[in-house]
Amino acid sequence: MLLETLGAIVGAGNVLTGEQVGSRAVSWADHGPCRALAIVRPGSTDEVSRVLAACHAADQPLVVLGGLTGLVQGCVPAAHEIALSLERMNRIESVDPLGRTMTVEAGVPVQRVQEEAEKHGLLYPVDWGARGSAQIGGSVATNAGGNGVIRYGMTRDSVLGLEAVLADGTVIPAMNRMLKNNAAYDLKQLFIGSEGTLGVITRLVLRMRELPRSTQTALVACPSFGNVTRFLKHIDSALGGSLTAFELMWNEFYCLVTTPPSRGTPPLPQDHAYYVLVESGGSDPARDQSQFEEAIGAALEAGLAVDAVVCTSQAQREALWALRDDVEGIFRLGAPVAFDVSLPLPAMEDYVTEVLGRLEREWPHYRRFLFGHLGDGNLHLIAVGPPSAEARHGIERCVYEPLVSRGGSVSAEHGIGVEKRPWLELCRSPAELALMRKLKQALDPKGILNPGRVLPD
Amino acid sequence: MLLETLGAIVGAGNVLTGEQVGSRAVSWADHGPCRALAIVRPGSTDEVSRVLAACHAADQPLVVLGGLTGLVQGCVPAAHEIALSLERMNRIESVDPLGRTMTVEAGVPVQRVQEEAEKHGLLYPVDWGARGSAQIGGSVATNAGGNGVIRYGMTRDSVLGLEAVLADGTVIPAMNRMLKNNAAYDLKQLFIGSEGTLGVITRLVLRMRELPRSTQTALVACPSFGNVTRFLKHIDSALGGSLTAFELMWNEFYCLVTTPPSRGTPPLPQDHAYYVLVESGGSDPARDQSQFEEAIGAALEAGLAVDAVVCTSQAQREALWALRDDVEGIFRLGAPVAFDVSLPLPAMEDYVTEVLGRLEREWPHYRRFLFGHLGDGNLHLIAVGPPSAEARHGIERCVYEPLVSRGGSVSAEHGIGVEKRPWLELCRSPAELALMRKLKQALDPKGILNPGRVLPD
Repeated sequence: MLLETLGAIVGAGNVLTGEQVGSRAVSWADHGPCRALAIVRPGSTDEVSRVLAACHAADQPLVVLGGLTGLVQGCVPAAHEIALSLERMNRIESVDPLGRTMTVEAGVPVQRVQEEAEKHGLLYPVDWGARGSAQIGGSVATNAGGNGVIRYGMTRDSVLGLEAVLADGTVIPAMNRMLKNNAAYDLKQLFIGSEGTLGVITRLVLRMRELPRSTQTALVACPSFGNVTRFLKHIDSALGGSLTAFELMWNEFYCLVTTPPSRGTPPLPQDHAYYVLVESGGSDPARDQSQFEEAIGAALEAGLAVDAVVCTSQAQREALWALRDDVEGIFRLGAPVAFDVSLPLPAMEDYVTEVLGRLEREWPHYRRFLFGHLGDGNLHLIAVGPPSAEARHGIERCVYEPLVSRGGSVSAEHGIGVEKRPWLELCRSPAELALMRKLKQALDPKGILNPGRVLPD
Repeated sequence: MLLETLGAIVGAGNVLTGEQVGSRAVSWADHGPCRALAIVRPGSTDEVSRVLAACHAADQPLVVLGGLTGLVQGCVPAAHEIALSLERMNRIESVDPLGRTMTVEAGVPVQRVQEEAEKHGLLYPVDWGARGSAQIGGSVATNAGGNGVIRYGMTRDSVLGLEAVLADGTVIPAMNRMLKNNAAYDLKQLFIGSEGTLGVITRLVLRMRELPRSTQTALVACPSFGNVTRFLKHIDSALGGSLTAFELMWNEFYCLVTTPPSRGTPPLPQDHAYYVLVESGGSDPARDQSQFEEAIGAALEAGLAVDAVVCTSQAQREALWALRDDVEGIFRLGAPVAFDVSLPLPAMEDYVTEVLGRLEREWPHYRRFLFGHLGDGNLHLIAVGPPSAEARHGIERCVYEPLVSRGGSVSAEHGIGVEKRPWLELCRSPAELALMRKLKQALDPKGILNPGRVLPD
């Protein structure tokens, strides 16, 4: 009955059921069949609004699907849930090269946004591996991070305006196009990073930047963690605003990805403690390259760094990034338990020492690899070994509990979804959680939007 | 009775009444006496919490006072309202040069934050004229803008964490210190820019940047508005991320501030249509200056600009900024009606033409001056002439109404307060206003916090 109503709204061909649902994968990582009651594919904001109003009236829970590239199982529909897919809302509506904005529907893949920007000499600066599949709406709903955060911020900082539909079908048309707009509450902030639990993002106004005309990349070896953090300050200051990435690899990670069967070869010897992939983007290839090399030279002279290789070609640059992105080598070693935490930089070395010590004592059969977006205080840790639910939980305790006293977060950029929900209380106070529930109650009193995701029961 | 309770919480000497209240000015602009029932000055978050809980229980409305430098009468207490002043909570708690954060109480003046940052080789990049009096808490509550927004964003982008107290006294301790934290809803966003109507900000974690080592400044003349916007794109791209200000002055404004009795002298002839104050901050004085001069030279060659003067000393730089900041010359001409609007850049020239045309037809006896943070789509317009409430309202209609069809905002950076409340509905839809009221209802159901400010009744 509800499905018939929904079919009348979106067209019967856009209400998928049975085999049409089961033939779709759960996510990029889980190729098992999707189990949703139905997949509903609206073609416009008006259709989203009417679908939500109908589900709201029927107390029907929904899960909003983007590109299914999330890492916290936020978009895995249960058998009684309707999956709302924005895949048909994939139009780039307009580009404003002067005002440096792009207006898009939520279902556009991130990579298409990036490519369209480049056609106009612009940059959409949020970027990460899943760009080809991830949808822009999902990236905003989860406030995606990635590699350029130190310069351009999280996705939140590239959203000027958005349109969202509340659980009851109300459309919130907050399509601001300006950098400055203090006309009362900035409602878009509610929907950014709340993972679809407060509303469904349908359209966006994105902030573009001028496309850099040059890119400088280097791999730099540092002898101690203290030197890594001092090198970060040095290079950020020396580059005067053009630092775009500061990615750290610990020795074990670097050795793994530069040793067969991994495809990479070591651009620097494998006996350093830390390796930093540093990148800047500027306006003048010759001048920027000499400034970049001087800044790295000064770091070597000052002893902050002990070895470095500066890229002189795009091929070298891609080879360096391929090392940083090569997590498959880890997955070959067994079942991975992967983390995405953040904490204040001054606390990080001590935190890592404590975590590695605990893991060594409690889970000695699991190998540990560390890397991260150090410029943002964001650490990725992957433990790998025999698959075991008990080990997984035990390892999670080892990694998450030492965050508490240090003011860290159990999720830097991946969000909470379902997977991290049990740990959220480690880093958010009861008062904060109560306020979150109050917001949820105010915007979705029946709890039909992404129920059971993000907030603990 | 309530005042006695409050005195027991904050100390009797910190509950000001009678002459102690009346001897204080209403604001920086209105030197008439403050009329609050009492001024209550808590010394800690705990005291703020207990004061709010007591007022909440007694249904007592409050107005939160910062440095009284606001421009929209948001902090003018009525005789039945208690004024809550954060002036005693003025401690800088800590600076983290490595993590590049500063933790402060809300009552610290913005200038003290800036000066403390500089001591550590850091920059707090939000800056505007009222820095000496404005309190950091108020600047966050109003999401202050200023001159560096094009590079560093609004105040919102420099806030990593905050602590706020809800109307009922609940403390929300969201003191995040990381650039990346996606652990559920980003609650701080609720309190930034909501002008104290959803909670009282008591403490803050601010994001710092590395202090630029060089500053380049120029005044550039452009022959047409189209050239101004193309020059913005050119210079932003050519400087590769170091552009920090792009301030536009229309001819009438420039002539006024460079002609006696104004103190300024004209660095460029007075016959150009537009003058841009452009500034960048980098890491290498010699290299940056030559890059800056080349970029401006290229603009002259391309015909985007027709004349330019590049500063070679700090004194020259200050003289240029003094022109841009010299609004007193306007105030000498009569009663000012001042505006702070924003709109998409491609719509701005046509908007200005329409507004000036309407003003010329409807209010010919008022002179009009235009300037603005063009890089942010932010336009300031001041009309000046005989004081008259009717004229004021009529001029407001002329300026605000043409924003509607262009997607503009009645407040770019000053907020809504009381003064702009009647115009808010021009730029926010009924659905948005209803959602704002829903948030207000959820967080402050009795409506005791800054009642009657921001939201239309």
